[in-house]
Amino acid sequence: MKQRLEKLLHWMKENGIDVTFLTSTENVFYLSGFYSDPHERLLGLLLFQEAEPFLVCPAMEIEDARRSGWNHDIIGYTDIENPWELINKAIYSRISKVSKVAIEKAHMNVERFEAIGSIFPSAIFTSAEEKLQKLRMIKDKKEVSIIREACKLADYAVKVGCAEIKEGKTELEIVAAIEYELKKKGITDMSFATMVLTGANGASPHGTPGMTKIQKGDLVLFDLGVIVDGYCSDITRTVAYGDINDKQKEIYDTVLKAQLAAIEASKPGVTCASLDLTARNIIRNAGFGDYFPHRLGHGLGIGVHEYPSLTETNPLVLEPGMVYTIEPGIYVPGVAGVRIEDDILVTEDGVEILTKFPKELQLFL
Amino acid sequence: MKQRLEKLLHWMKENGIDVTFLTSTENVFYLSGFYSDPHERLLGLLLFQEAEPFLVCPAMEIEDARRSGWNHDIIGYTDIENPWELINKAIYSRISKVSKVAIEKAHMNVERFEAIGSIFPSAIFTSAEEKLQKLRMIKDKKEVSIIREACKLADYAVKVGCAEIKEGKTELEIVAAIEYELKKKGITDMSFATMVLTGANGASPHGTPGMTKIQKGDLVLFDLGVIVDGYCSDITRTVAYGDINDKQKEIYDTVLKAQLAAIEASKPGVTCASLDLTARNIIRNAGFGDYFPHRLGHGLGIGVHEYPSLTETNPLVLEPGMVYTIEPGIYVPGVAGVRIEDDILVTEDGVEILTKFPKELQLFL
Repeated sequence: MKQRLEKLLHWMKENGIDVTFLTSTENVFYLSGFYSDPHERLLGLLLFQEAEPFLVCPAMEIEDARRSGWNHDIIGYTDIENPWELINKAIYSRISKVSKVAIEKAHMNVERFEAIGSIFPSAIFTSAEEKLQKLRMIKDKKEVSIIREACKLADYAVKVGCAEIKEGKTELEIVAAIEYELKKKGITDMSFATMVLTGANGASPHGTPGMTKIQKGDLVLFDLGVIVDGYCSDITRTVAYGDINDKQKEIYDTVLKAQLAAIEASKPGVTCASLDLTARNIIRNAGFGDYFPHRLGHGLGIGVHEYPSLTETNPLVLEPGMVYTIEPGIYVPGVAGVRIEDDILVTEDGVEILTKFPKELQLFL
Repeated sequence: MKQRLEKLLHWMKENGIDVTFLTSTENVFYLSGFYSDPHERLLGLLLFQEAEPFLVCPAMEIEDARRSGWNHDIIGYTDIENPWELINKAIYSRISKVSKVAIEKAHMNVERFEAIGSIFPSAIFTSAEEKLQKLRMIKDKKEVSIIREACKLADYAVKVGCAEIKEGKTELEIVAAIEYELKKKGITDMSFATMVLTGANGASPHGTPGMTKIQKGDLVLFDLGVIVDGYCSDITRTVAYGDINDKQKEIYDTVLKAQLAAIEASKPGVTCASLDLTARNIIRNAGFGDYFPHRLGHGLGIGVHEYPSLTETNPLVLEPGMVYTIEPGIYVPGVAGVRIEDDILVTEDGVEILTKFPKELQLFL
């Protein structure tokens, strides 16, 4: 945590930023260790080049913030206090002139921006997000070990889902069974709404689970993730219920081949674009190029969709400590939808695959 | 839907607003019928005093928007198009001079605000939120019938939870069982993370369910809601497992008395403040005033926490068509936490209680 703060302060000095004012749950957690989503109430972390940083949170959360290990100042406010007045006072007791302020422009709303604007009437506002994306992109050992645990539970969740596959079960029943078993293990939050899609529904990359019943000959697609200590996993597996036809099999084999090739190509020094193209070219050459409408994958960590984006145009080079998904898919309306997704850690000389549920086509009868 | 648009246009004319640019899932749904949360992608509804309104959404959602009944223009953009350019063009094909623009200041982020700022370089920006809060506050017949259905399912969810009460069951297991049964009925989303708290946990108004096991002599608090067709319900019940002591009973009886009195006092013409005070005074007079740290309730609809807020200082007067919660609570650390919450519809001459699970103390052995 201390190292992260130091890196951010270094960046502030280099760029002449007097104050960084962060308000998102994710970035406040990353830099303070305090995970909190006070909804419409204000959460803030304020950093200065030299002066003592401070946290702002609802008064009833002060104890939680302390327990999270934050040992600098905390300013709590009750529902009848104006947090902006307290913040104003705390800032100008630390620093007298502010000419440049970094905020999260994709997160902070206009109402708060106006409040901050009156605290710093003559400041220039710049974005802190790009810097934080890059810091968060490289995971440390502790982060990796938490994500590893989250991936283990994602594997388990797919296993639970597969055990539920039976004629006539609805997608939502299987979702319910998966989340039930995870809650029994003490998991309170999934990375996103668990997806179980069957038959034609799986052929939409944006489907949502409903009352559709599983039938023999269907492919069943699971896309889910688990949150452990604030970090997300994200896995997709597609399995077969009963005999599937040759076209479905061909699609599955093509996706798997593309996915394995992109993993095989992953190592430090390789670009995101080349990974995407490795998978995309296999799918194109098999004649399914038009049916792979999304990027290859995305970074993963505190957010389930983090920087970087693995697209065919991203020149960013892989580095040890990056964690990202590789998830090619083919969606042929009326025929089949297949996606296979793993979470990948870049190591010094290659990668570690963090999700381990089998990828040879699993057949349930 | 047409009536809602007309009311908003009337407000725009009265206030000299040339363009209203809405971006929140809730308000776009309210005015267009299209429910969509495209996450980091842009969703927008643009309204003009005279010219044709239009929706902006990811291209792959155009079909969904049409099916939702929106029969004005839709501008779809792909991942490689810049939606702001399309929006700019669409605006200036409709209108030539823009001096005042209404946006959702508590929702729109700074990045988008800057993009809109360059479309309207000399405009004043005002907030659309207060007007929309007031419009949404009065529910029409269709809205009420959907909320009624959502409340029925909330009653059912509490019933399911009660049936799970057994020695040694964890809070999360009961949460899991409730959500499992609702998913089996086709419910995809709860209004918020289902809360089941037992024993000491129930005595924190901000507890989250975990691995705590139910024991004889515990009070068990359920706080949950169900989303039906975009509308939320919200119910709280506190029940007893085995024999509870006199102090627990006294707290329960006090909360129930306060809750019933506030419902009894509800009718058109009464202020929010007087409702809050009706309940609060009963709790204060019983000596528990310090242990009721929150407002009496809140509006309910597309959002689970809507306008108005039922606080002891809100002079707003009840009107037919309002739907809100009445949810007094007493939380004595180490002793007991009790909250009882119903969803209330104001009618022409009184109220209808939409949640119906029994409120006499339910005892499970």
